[in-house]
Amino acid sequence: MENKSQEKQISAFPTGEKLPDQFSHYFIGQAYLAPLTANDELHVPIANVTFEPRCRNNWHSHTGGQILIGVAGTGWVQEKGKPARKIEIGDVIEIAPDVVHWHGATADSWFSHLAIECNPQINKNIWLDPVTDKEYNVLE
Amino acid sequence: MENKSQEKQISAFPTGEKLPDQFSHYFIGQAYLAPLTANDELHVPIANVTFEPRCRNNWHSHTGGQILIGVAGTGWVQEKGKPARKIEIGDVIEIAPDVVHWHGATADSWFSHLAIECNPQINKNIWLDPVTDKEYNVLE
Repeated sequence: MENKSQEKQISAFPTGEKLPDQFSHYFIGQAYLAPLTANDELHVPIANVTFEPRCRNNWHSHTGGQILIGVAGTGWVQEKGKPARKIEIGDVIEIAPDVVHWHGATADSWFSHLAIECNPQINKNIWLDPVTDKEYNVLE
Repeated sequence: MENKSQEKQISAFPTGEKLPDQFSHYFIGQAYLAPLTANDELHVPIANVTFEPRCRNNWHSHTGGQILIGVAGTGWVQEKGKPARKIEIGDVIEIAPDVVHWHGATADSWFSHLAIECNPQINKNIWLDPVTDKEYNVLE
């Protein structure tokens, strides 16, 4: 698979391009996006998302849910009201529909996860507040 | 994630248990299955499937389609009437609904791919003839 990114590839998957504005508006730090699928009738859109250290998305939810698969580095995922948990390579994280959460890199590691949009026929992303430095800096 | 298998883990994903009879009836050689997801409402069941060298499944199709993601070793995938193509780590293979195909390991490599069942609400697997040694041995 071709990797058009100027950013180096950190896993067997392409890193892709800088995240488009429609998403980067809801991220702190720089992320990259590489779509990996094309057949809409399969209803399983998959992309590789790469985060620079400390990069993370806002609190958000998906009406259709989401699955994350760690493929490079170490990241965080946190559901509202629960402790953050680390995502390592090979971890599969199921985010149920409408559950408020965020994900991103740890402070000292680049991080890539495959992101699978679930139920794309009905899915909408609901973007909420940023994960503040106060919230992020306590993680360990 | 716990790995209950006696078979060694060859990727960051668990290898799991020997393939249950409901599937192994349609495989030549030994394969292993590790389910990776549990939330049915996401409609994206994912499993890690591991094949010993030369192990492959029969020609078959899925009414809902399937996505394969190479995660260890080197494998083959072939759609009916087309040349076989190698699956390397990081390759994402989209199998459209009702397309007759098979997949498995190369002759000299163990192989693991994530297998994503697409459209599980309506998916059925249609199993056909084995991939004969005559068909398999010409691959290179």
